[in-house]
Amino acid sequence: MIVDVKSPVPSDIEIAQAANMKPIREVAEGVGLTEDDLEPCGWYKAKVHLDVLEKFKDRPNAKYIDVTAITPTPLGEGKTVTTIGVSQGLAYLGKKVFTCIRQPSQGPTFGIKGGAAGGGYAQIVSMEDFNLHLTGDIHAVGAAHNLLAAAIDNRLAKEDRWSTSYLAKALCPDDEYTPSMRKRLEKLGIESERPSDLSDEDKERMFRLNIDPYSIQWRRVVDVSDAALRSIIIGLGPRNDGPTRQTGYDITVASEIMAALALCSDLADLRDRMGRIIIGTSKKGGLRHVGRIEPITAEDLNVAGAMTVLLKEAIMPNLMQTLMGSPAFVHCGPFANIAQGNSSVIADKIALKLMGPDGYVVTESGFGADCGMEKFFNIKCRVSGLVPNCVVIVASVRALKMHGGGPKVVAGKPLDKIYTQENLELLEKGLSNLTQHVENARKFGVPVVVAVNRFTSDTAAEIEVVKKAAMEAGAEAVAMSNVWAKGGEGGAELAEAVIAACEKPVDFKFLYPDEMSIKEKIETVVREIYRADGVDYTAEAEARIKLFTDMGLSHLPLCMAKTHLSFTHDPAIKGTPRGWRMPITDVRASVGAGFLFPLCGTMRTMPGLPTRPVFTDIDIDLETGKVVGLS
Amino acid sequence: MIVDVKSPVPSDIEIAQAANMKPIREVAEGVGLTEDDLEPCGWYKAKVHLDVLEKFKDRPNAKYIDVTAITPTPLGEGKTVTTIGVSQGLAYLGKKVFTCIRQPSQGPTFGIKGGAAGGGYAQIVSMEDFNLHLTGDIHAVGAAHNLLAAAIDNRLAKEDRWSTSYLAKALCPDDEYTPSMRKRLEKLGIESERPSDLSDEDKERMFRLNIDPYSIQWRRVVDVSDAALRSIIIGLGPRNDGPTRQTGYDITVASEIMAALALCSDLADLRDRMGRIIIGTSKKGGLRHVGRIEPITAEDLNVAGAMTVLLKEAIMPNLMQTLMGSPAFVHCGPFANIAQGNSSVIADKIALKLMGPDGYVVTESGFGADCGMEKFFNIKCRVSGLVPNCVVIVASVRALKMHGGGPKVVAGKPLDKIYTQENLELLEKGLSNLTQHVENARKFGVPVVVAVNRFTSDTAAEIEVVKKAAMEAGAEAVAMSNVWAKGGEGGAELAEAVIAACEKPVDFKFLYPDEMSIKEKIETVVREIYRADGVDYTAEAEARIKLFTDMGLSHLPLCMAKTHLSFTHDPAIKGTPRGWRMPITDVRASVGAGFLFPLCGTMRTMPGLPTRPVFTDIDIDLETGKVVGLS
Repeated sequence: MIVDVKSPVPSDIEIAQAANMKPIREVAEGVGLTEDDLEPCGWYKAKVHLDVLEKFKDRPNAKYIDVTAITPTPLGEGKTVTTIGVSQGLAYLGKKVFTCIRQPSQGPTFGIKGGAAGGGYAQIVSMEDFNLHLTGDIHAVGAAHNLLAAAIDNRLAKEDRWSTSYLAKALCPDDEYTPSMRKRLEKLGIESERPSDLSDEDKERMFRLNIDPYSIQWRRVVDVSDAALRSIIIGLGPRNDGPTRQTGYDITVASEIMAALALCSDLADLRDRMGRIIIGTSKKGGLRHVGRIEPITAEDLNVAGAMTVLLKEAIMPNLMQTLMGSPAFVHCGPFANIAQGNSSVIADKIALKLMGPDGYVVTESGFGADCGMEKFFNIKCRVSGLVPNCVVIVASVRALKMHGGGPKVVAGKPLDKIYTQENLELLEKGLSNLTQHVENARKFGVPVVVAVNRFTSDTAAEIEVVKKAAMEAGAEAVAMSNVWAKGGEGGAELAEAVIAACEKPVDFKFLYPDEMSIKEKIETVVREIYRADGVDYTAEAEARIKLFTDMGLSHLPLCMAKTHLSFTHDPAIKGTPRGWRMPITDVRASVGAGFLFPLCGTMRTMPGLPTRPVFTDIDIDLETGKVVGLS
Repeated sequence: MIVDVKSPVPSDIEIAQAANMKPIREVAEGVGLTEDDLEPCGWYKAKVHLDVLEKFKDRPNAKYIDVTAITPTPLGEGKTVTTIGVSQGLAYLGKKVFTCIRQPSQGPTFGIKGGAAGGGYAQIVSMEDFNLHLTGDIHAVGAAHNLLAAAIDNRLAKEDRWSTSYLAKALCPDDEYTPSMRKRLEKLGIESERPSDLSDEDKERMFRLNIDPYSIQWRRVVDVSDAALRSIIIGLGPRNDGPTRQTGYDITVASEIMAALALCSDLADLRDRMGRIIIGTSKKGGLRHVGRIEPITAEDLNVAGAMTVLLKEAIMPNLMQTLMGSPAFVHCGPFANIAQGNSSVIADKIALKLMGPDGYVVTESGFGADCGMEKFFNIKCRVSGLVPNCVVIVASVRALKMHGGGPKVVAGKPLDKIYTQENLELLEKGLSNLTQHVENARKFGVPVVVAVNRFTSDTAAEIEVVKKAAMEAGAEAVAMSNVWAKGGEGGAELAEAVIAACEKPVDFKFLYPDEMSIKEKIETVVREIYRADGVDYTAEAEARIKLFTDMGLSHLPLCMAKTHLSFTHDPAIKGTPRGWRMPITDVRASVGAGFLFPLCGTMRTMPGLPTRPVFTDIDIDLETGKVVGLS
């Protein structure tokens, strides 16, 4: 450990600030990276160039471990702490290990939740950098996202104002097409060397996008929890400012660009993905005359290149360290409901090569295993081609008691004492939540380790009951985790279990093939993972499924947009409900990210602030220059 | 030069990408900085710690040179090119020289104007970093600005929903005040150890800010040119999302936070400035009962500490290099109309110490000398206590002909040939614009050098006429600048003139003292610099002047918000008009930045996009990974 372990455990920020961090150059050297492979960002973090992948391409991959959890209480069950803890445990045992996790949004850091660098003696440091700006990747995503948004309203304003021949002349003043315009020509099936070649009709098709303002799904983003921006009206100025229309803001990490960045393989792939982003549709006919409307992309707006330019540093993963001084990548932070909720493919790929065949890479999936792990397998592994060696499912006695029918757990309110006293009956009733998650993981053919995030109030009898149920459901092992209080040493038991599980054979398979229809895919996930009897679609969802099928998008994997607080769409329903049907209210397409997302209920994409936001306590200590109050 | 000078001159980005940049560590070593003084940001830029000031505090300052311009055409007269050019010229002559300039906004980089790293063989490199994100300072300003905005609407929503006793309990759950709350207690003149001490009336005053939604002047910001956001309605969601109200977005560099960052002296000063920011007023009575309303500050919202935390890296200047490999600070980019339009005080102070008594620091003021230079002296030098040794006024024959009555100059349209043929009559008529700027500069007691940004079409006779007029108006010298085509060598003549001017005695004085009334200050600037006969105030402006005087803010300097395209408030009026009166439509206060800004007409604080934005050409060359199309 790069910090002395104390008892009682001090606050997260006190521990983090006491750490004697290694210079990042030293961390990099330890994994075989030279200065040429890095872009330093201060002395304790660095971006890693993507050509490292080429350099180590012949080296076999390390073991690949995904950390997920049972259906959590609103307090969370310590998934990030355990992810870092497994890594620190492996490092404690002398293993080569790399941790790959998401960068948190600054919104919740200042709002309700506080930071997300882990906690206690299982943290990524520097904790301030982790939680604040990091190396600016989220801001870069925001800049690219909002540039596209501005391009949309600007185009609406200009098309409203100018004739097609003026538009053509303004867009091609030298009578030449840009490469981006040539892509649109190709999409439209128009052969033309120069704009002056075009017939009036083709000129109209080429230069008048004719965007339907009511179809626009591309909102704006900001990395602040700002509920007043959820629903807004823009364009109240004169005609040239753009049309008056209703739209809104999401938190930046909910941007499709964040999802695409986390799934792309390199800069060329990212450039393609930016071009493919669909922002809405045209008002009438056009390309393929699908359902009489045509999808409008970022490429059509000639802005996908500039968006990619804004992301050319953000694509490089950020190297940091754990409190064991072991290497960690913190890269991308896509939302876990409307997006995949997993850190980047690129970071995992580089880490797997850097660790090599006798090493370990530990990554984390957002939300519970029904959300994050399912997407880890069906989306992230499908895109990356990587095969995981082991899944760690984090459970707590507290959460299992809640699933057994315990009183409501509410953040900020005192816990009912039933959660801190032995209660085998309640626990046993709730165990099925754990066993369903274990069974679900086994369906993907990957060995499962259950990590019990042990609280001091958990009794030996309670732990025994959990162990027995998990083993019966097919887990390879059940191990205690005490990383919050003890750091690497507290993660050793779990690390041993993970090492053993990684030696087991893997028979990895996706839950559904690409070529399955959209409805079959939805129904597969709903029946196999959530265990509903079937699916009910709204008319809107049905129409979308038809549209996306007609548009040739049915090969895309699904990203189910569902609450993480229940196997169902209703966060109040705990345990493992049976005999219910999943309502699908709408289906949307993130073509740049490369998935369709069916909506199981309403998803919040912009958090709010409480009456006393976390920022109330955050300040600079002007004597020391240190941050205080960050949690 | 770190790049070979070619003729004809290639595009800016081709020159920049061909440069053989020095590692930033080498640039830093060259000015006496060690690794401990730096935070590297990649290999070619670094942030410099503020404690460098303490380290070199006993060293005398270098010579301090401000580069400004005559009233420009809409094409600009090459002020940034000349700023970098003077520096490169000094370096060419073997002098120690540091360049300090502003970071440009990404909005115009992708919108109308393109980049701002200089041009030709007078540039700051890397040009891509300069124009894109740099080290994230503008994003940090945006994050702090928008956090305050969210805090405002959140407070409105929560006060609308909860009783005062609930608010008190929610804000102080442990019956304890935060340091920020103690500041509000002090401001209200309430003595109290704990919230439970308070009388009902004091509790109301303390915890219910009672913000008047119509008074809120704090808009939101984004670093994108997005005209559709100029005027918007927010809060269309349910009650808890915040009230429905009209507001809008400015470009991030127009944020008061950017102005404050550029004027602050250290982190403690920045923390104070954040706390002092006034976002609007209360609905009725309260502190001092001034005009029956009370100013509401960021401190009252308990968010000034968190805002400062977001800016703790942005306060450090960014070290880069010119095409001579000489050091440059690129730091802060406040707007030049509603703010001071000058780069940071901190960067200048550090550079002056690093260069020492036999060195030179060249900085630039935004807009023409009537705007940027006047604010450089009256605001920036007043705050910093620094005394400039020389002013360089950039002029072009083209602009002087325009002031003499030449046809309108419009960006993107071909120049009338009158501008490229000898025309002494038109030139002589326009000379008064130059001479008025020279006389204005002389009023501050600082030696003046006129730099003629020479175009190939300028004739010897034309240059002679300009020289004679400038010398008669009091310039120390008139020198030709050919830095765009020739780099350092092309700046040598100008550098010689600057060196000579810096040896002249300086009798520096402000145009007005702190204790002058607001109206007297306005009238002094208007009569002395713009040469109007007097000032006409709207009723609104009169009311504001009274309010700010009552609030004790009349000691602040003025930041005149005026067009840079004319000495008057009307951009169409060229030359040196006489016999006119300046209308002041409103007066606003940037108390965090530390100035009042009278509005001379309507100011645009959010640029728009043209039909063919600059982003249309910007892309990544996927073969080389290089940026193309950035201008």
